[in-house]
Amino acid sequence: MEQDQTPSEKPGHPPAQAILHELRTAENSAAHLLPKLHSMKESNPHLTLLDVGAGSGTISVSFAQLIPDGHVTGIDLNPNILPRARAVAEKADVKNIEFQQGSIYKLPFADETFDVTFCHQVLIHIGTPWDALREMLRVTKAGGIVAAREGDYETECVWPELPELCKFHKLMAGLMSAGGGTPTAGRQLLSWALKAGVERSQITLSYSTTSYHTPSEKKHCSQGLCDQLRGGSLREKALKFGLGSENDFEEMAKAWEEWAEREDACLAMLHGEILVQK
Amino acid sequence: MEQDQTPSEKPGHPPAQAILHELRTAENSAAHLLPKLHSMKESNPHLTLLDVGAGSGTISVSFAQLIPDGHVTGIDLNPNILPRARAVAEKADVKNIEFQQGSIYKLPFADETFDVTFCHQVLIHIGTPWDALREMLRVTKAGGIVAAREGDYETECVWPELPELCKFHKLMAGLMSAGGGTPTAGRQLLSWALKAGVERSQITLSYSTTSYHTPSEKKHCSQGLCDQLRGGSLREKALKFGLGSENDFEEMAKAWEEWAEREDACLAMLHGEILVQK
Repeated sequence: MEQDQTPSEKPGHPPAQAILHELRTAENSAAHLLPKLHSMKESNPHLTLLDVGAGSGTISVSFAQLIPDGHVTGIDLNPNILPRARAVAEKADVKNIEFQQGSIYKLPFADETFDVTFCHQVLIHIGTPWDALREMLRVTKAGGIVAAREGDYETECVWPELPELCKFHKLMAGLMSAGGGTPTAGRQLLSWALKAGVERSQITLSYSTTSYHTPSEKKHCSQGLCDQLRGGSLREKALKFGLGSENDFEEMAKAWEEWAEREDACLAMLHGEILVQK
Repeated sequence: MEQDQTPSEKPGHPPAQAILHELRTAENSAAHLLPKLHSMKESNPHLTLLDVGAGSGTISVSFAQLIPDGHVTGIDLNPNILPRARAVAEKADVKNIEFQQGSIYKLPFADETFDVTFCHQVLIHIGTPWDALREMLRVTKAGGIVAAREGDYETECVWPELPELCKFHKLMAGLMSAGGGTPTAGRQLLSWALKAGVERSQITLSYSTTSYHTPSEKKHCSQGLCDQLRGGSLREKALKFGLGSENDFEEMAKAWEEWAEREDACLAMLHGEILVQK
């Protein structure tokens, strides 16, 4: 789920924090779902898929490319991100997709609408993720799949361990908690699905990683994090919650720039993943 | 690298802490190496592979099965584990393998002996892992591969977060550090390879996870950890280093038993992986 855009950001243009979000695709962020999606597509090419908290829409668009005879709906709480998502789809020349505004807690769809309902890095940010999963299950057809992938922020590991990067880690965890989220979402995903009323036998649990270590990945990662520290809504929220000063954020940004130049630099995090068979 | 066996353990039988170690195979513990191994095998079926810190030998044996016209040498610092490794090979009817005693710091082989030199969860336990990598490079042929996979213990995440399991986590990290090891090996693996004198362009870095969450995995995991807490060398070392009392260890073991019975239970850890092209 995207943060609000700052007023200076133009509709259809990526918000300050989008560099990292827009690296996400179905291939790198929903790999645990893809074998099941392909087998479902074989028996029904006209699959319908809902991507909840679609943000800039890069994952939604790659799903739409994977089910060319199907249809993808991307939904996000933030209406300001929708023009950007539509621009991403248009640039990829993807037509079997639409984006609309809506909350994961009250999806604007009838029961049993979609074959597949997916979310990525959404449950980590919200207060009662089991309610969200219950709502995702509601709009999913019997025999369909609910899939989620959520990071476990406390597994994030960065090298070299520059002091300002450790402070940044605490800042991000603090922001997540202050916003009502759960930094340890990855390890709790299974428990949340059970709390949503799903049987253990319906759930397939797995884990994967996200990492940045090639020159190009380091550049994008550093630039994305510096953008967040030097502008945009994340910085505003951090200031509002008293989680640091403008000077602190500038020091952290400089540390990320230094990190990106180091050849021993790497950043990795573990993600929890579930597939729920409805 | 295996811990020493207690005197009560019989040669050829698994030591107390072996349940988890013996779940390891090339497929689940060296997946990053397998595509390269297969392509090397195509041009040379007679590959030679060295598995350093082979322990009970389950990874070595599965390597030997993957290169049936090649040959695997497993080496371990602890001579008491060698009969167990030979028994594992014999049970699998694998002949193209041998096990011998030796140190990763002074491998008993001439320069450029092996096509592939591998280690798993060895560098995490030793004081100067870059020296070990340099030694692994020495015994590897020009054009060959050095591969390593090391956990990052600080990324271990367990659910539910029973207090005794958090104490167990600290105990294991304390033991690793007290023994001269590095609990954050996974994130440092790249930096260690650079420190061993390798160029960044020779190194392919990746990450993967190890996890336990199915009923069978939870049973094996709990049983393996309880065995370590109730007997064997790990318990002895923990007592020696003053990292807890017998009562503490019994409480931790009970918590692992409770964990294994919970349907929301899971345990996962991130591992760093390198392939070094010599």
